[in-house]
Amino acid sequence: MAYNLLKGKKGIIFGALDNKSIAWKVAEKAQEEGAVFTLSNTPTALRFGQIDELAEKCNAEIIPADATNVADLTNVFERSMEVLSGQVDFVLHSIGMSLNVRKKRVYNDLDYNFLNKTLDISSISFHKMLQVAHKLNAINEWGSVVALSYIAAQRTLYGYNDMADAKALLESIARSFGYIYGREHKIRVNTISQSPTYTTAGSGVKGMNALMDFTERMSPLGNADADECANYCIVMFSDLTKKVTMQNLFHDGGFSNMGMSLRAMKMYNRGLPDSDEIE
Amino acid sequence: MAYNLLKGKKGIIFGALDNKSIAWKVAEKAQEEGAVFTLSNTPTALRFGQIDELAEKCNAEIIPADATNVADLTNVFERSMEVLSGQVDFVLHSIGMSLNVRKKRVYNDLDYNFLNKTLDISSISFHKMLQVAHKLNAINEWGSVVALSYIAAQRTLYGYNDMADAKALLESIARSFGYIYGREHKIRVNTISQSPTYTTAGSGVKGMNALMDFTERMSPLGNADADECANYCIVMFSDLTKKVTMQNLFHDGGFSNMGMSLRAMKMYNRGLPDSDEIE
Amino acid sequence: MAYNLLKGKKGIIFGALDNKSIAWKVAEKAQEEGAVFTLSNTPTALRFGQIDELAEKCNAEIIPADATNVADLTNVFERSMEVLSGQVDFVLHSIGMSLNVRKKRVYNDLDYNFLNKTLDISSISFHKMLQVAHKLNAINEWGSVVALSYIAAQRTLYGYNDMADAKALLESIARSFGYIYGREHKIRVNTISQSPTYTTAGSGVKGMNALMDFTERMSPLGNADADECANYCIVMFSDLTKKVTMQNLFHDGGFSNMGMSLRAMKMYNRGLPDSDEIE
Amino acid sequence: MAYNLLKGKKGIIFGALDNKSIAWKVAEKAQEEGAVFTLSNTPTALRFGQIDELAEKCNAEIIPADATNVADLTNVFERSMEVLSGQVDFVLHSIGMSLNVRKKRVYNDLDYNFLNKTLDISSISFHKMLQVAHKLNAINEWGSVVALSYIAAQRTLYGYNDMADAKALLESIARSFGYIYGREHKIRVNTISQSPTYTTAGSGVKGMNALMDFTERMSPLGNADADECANYCIVMFSDLTKKVTMQNLFHDGGFSNMGMSLRAMKMYNRGLPDSDEIE
Repeated sequence: MAYNLLKGKKGIIFGALDNKSIAWKVAEKAQEEGAVFTLSNTPTALRFGQIDELAEKCNAEIIPADATNVADLTNVFERSMEVLSGQVDFVLHSIGMSLNVRKKRVYNDLDYNFLNKTLDISSISFHKMLQVAHKLNAINEWGSVVALSYIAAQRTLYGYNDMADAKALLESIARSFGYIYGREHKIRVNTISQSPTYTTAGSGVKGMNALMDFTERMSPLGNADADECANYCIVMFSDLTKKVTMQNLFHDGGFSNMGMSLRAMKMYNRGLPDSDEIE
Repeated sequence: MAYNLLKGKKGIIFGALDNKSIAWKVAEKAQEEGAVFTLSNTPTALRFGQIDELAEKCNAEIIPADATNVADLTNVFERSMEVLSGQVDFVLHSIGMSLNVRKKRVYNDLDYNFLNKTLDISSISFHKMLQVAHKLNAINEWGSVVALSYIAAQRTLYGYNDMADAKALLESIARSFGYIYGREHKIRVNTISQSPTYTTAGSGVKGMNALMDFTERMSPLGNADADECANYCIVMFSDLTKKVTMQNLFHDGGFSNMGMSLRAMKMYNRGLPDSDEIE
Repeated sequence: MAYNLLKGKKGIIFGALDNKSIAWKVAEKAQEEGAVFTLSNTPTALRFGQIDELAEKCNAEIIPADATNVADLTNVFERSMEVLSGQVDFVLHSIGMSLNVRKKRVYNDLDYNFLNKTLDISSISFHKMLQVAHKLNAINEWGSVVALSYIAAQRTLYGYNDMADAKALLESIARSFGYIYGREHKIRVNTISQSPTYTTAGSGVKGMNALMDFTERMSPLGNADADECANYCIVMFSDLTKKVTMQNLFHDGGFSNMGMSLRAMKMYNRGLPDSDEIE
Repeated sequence: MAYNLLKGKKGIIFGALDNKSIAWKVAEKAQEEGAVFTLSNTPTALRFGQIDELAEKCNAEIIPADATNVADLTNVFERSMEVLSGQVDFVLHSIGMSLNVRKKRVYNDLDYNFLNKTLDISSISFHKMLQVAHKLNAINEWGSVVALSYIAAQRTLYGYNDMADAKALLESIARSFGYIYGREHKIRVNTISQSPTYTTAGSGVKGMNALMDFTERMSPLGNADADECANYCIVMFSDLTKKVTMQNLFHDGGFSNMGMSLRAMKMYNRGLPDSDEIE
């Protein structure tokens, strides 16, 4: 069901890889809601993903870019304004990668070149995007920028490694630039802190299945999935949330404010050597 | 502009007094978005406010209730289900009052009977509402409940008095009951922490004008007004935010995450005896 | 080992029941650190507890008081100033009780008279204590007031029931009164949010053993015990923390900032029907 | 007045420059409290500062190091263990620098090489320190590590620029490594979020005087100074805070939990064109 929430709006969506990507779902919903937009991802992602299919479906141009490269980002915004005939109204940043995670370098044995890459790709790219857009005056007044984050920015989860620090940095950038962009152009910048989600990117994280079982049972509404996250992004791009900025918005079925649920405790209890019945 | 976001949805709106009330604006927008609903407020408020006008405009029945009275609340939910032919999908709690504020009892000279009333009216009424609804099974699966709050729940503002504690309690109740209602009926419960707003209720707070000037200059997007707050409520009642629960959502132009803005600092600086120019 | 951290300091300790109480440990440590103080608890607690033993050991007078009763509290402060020959330097509030928990009224079936009692005993008593002290000018400049809290104030734990709301209210009162007391008398007011602790009071909470196993494994340093909590209270009463106020200080082995630990995940995983090995 | 809180303890203090430095004060107090330690700073800082004076006073060896250089840090820990005859018990990280601030590159015109340096010097240096120490097993069980932070990690202050993001990253690293170091060696890692402080390093921040007037009037206890901060560091190094970890501890006279104080509002109000009297 569609509402025309983004009718007449223009945007740029970074980070769609395949049909499990949150960014992919955002693109689909944005189109249903009346938006036109461009898509961007790295040349490698474009080669291995299925983004052509999405581009066709959404009638969207793909603009390849390394999001850590200012020139590439400049091109994305310039080309987007050309293709879409004007400034954009929304931008989605759904980008993150850690070579430390991939190469199984644990947090007390980080490779610092990898860490720099993690931060550059997952966090600083967001600043670069905003700075480029700001210099080009590429975003309309009352535009909306969203980056996807994760609760590891606030709380440590074993195995999430340097991505936790990257998300903390990302959320800080959203606040810092949100202030600037708000006061000067009425543009809002927020992060959405999403439940752990089965995506091709997310599947590399250690112990993902057990963790997702835990968060599912801890969250009163269960984990939020990629489709639901896309809905929340649409809402944040719409004109109904104009005064929400510099926020980190938890979209997680309630997980972030749970200490212990009955369902999770029961499962945990089953593992205990001398478990009593829990009611 | 309307989107049919609440098409087919039924609700109850507590707390509309006059056309400055946030609840009033929510009612207007809810109707525009396709919802049907009932209105409730205290007999006194009904007498002094202009809610008849709203009821007529929205084709909504008014059900008088003292929100601290379980029997009254039971009647509101039962009657609403009758009038609306079934369970409701959304509930708005926009209720707050402090006799300590009204009678100018400062925070270190509280009257404890007044404090009990503040908490009963402003916070516990929310629990009563939820408990009554839960017992009557009055809210549909995936329904949404919102209460209006204020940042005084997290940070002390001189003169806000025991309403700060009431809002902290209100937000805690939203979390506590959000867990129960989520796990059992997939119903979400959130609070929206709104900018200081010129309402008939809000106008009693000490130094309101200077405070609102400060928050206006501190917030990169300026203060959020009642209309914008109503939009955010609509979004939280819609199907696009199904997995957001137990959250306190700041709707404040960015104020909550500001430490100091240039605009506010400039104004502050003007007050200083030996102010230098600030750029 | 003692450091004379409280040499020459005078205080009042509310809530010691038996030698498992945190307040009991605080009394013991306070004496070791050179303080003199009075003890207060309800007449019932005095009858069933072993506080006489503590009083003798610490050479402390016991002043019975119902902490919800302003006259009783007035007597405690007046009598303490008499016994201790002057204003006090520190106050500990370690008081909490829920009849809803005791009578097994679940959170969606609260008895509202019980809820009022929960809030009056566990939260508002703290305001009363501070207001009485303020009116009597009973606390010295740079004095320190601490109340014990629990993370349920921020995050919902099944079974903790209306005590969660009570703790949220308690922490709000600490902030609100901390502002007043700080600006007028340089007195600081904080809460310490302690790990779940085996005390006679804490033992009534549902599923306590499994929960404590979980928090023990989640917390990198394990649960904090009553002795360690007492040390932290001493620190907060000392002259070395003069500028810390209006804070909620987590004393929990790191639990509050954990999302998932390896140790807890392994145990949880053992409960899963088709668990894989987690490393 | 000294308490022997650090009697027998060994440590390393990074970042003392001159007698306005917080690290300098920590060194003085640590010595008074019975600790022995080494001092480290960059070769440049050693040349321009007065650290020789401190070293002599504290009978401490100076070990020059660029804190972004793993080899240098390795040397600091190895040499410290040699000089102090064994593992250390505490480490202070008081390091931060932004070339963007120094070169007046505003936040929407950052130089990304400068940003990388800001993060490397102000945040990643802390990870490197911890990783080096962990690999060398250089910190004793129940040791304590503290880094100094600022509320800009949570809330945007104009002019604080990329140091805000650096502090957010720093605090995240404290959590992430705090988990590892806690679970493996019972070592705690915390940050102290200090009031704005007149130090040689801090004096470069724009509008510092007006800001400090504002925070002074907002904070019920006034700004915390460097001496008071040093006291809090000592407490965090002592055996009385063993179970506090992964926390960001506000040491700010209450500023962090204030929304608006009467004193600040009065001053702000004086700047308003048509100010009314505020009481």
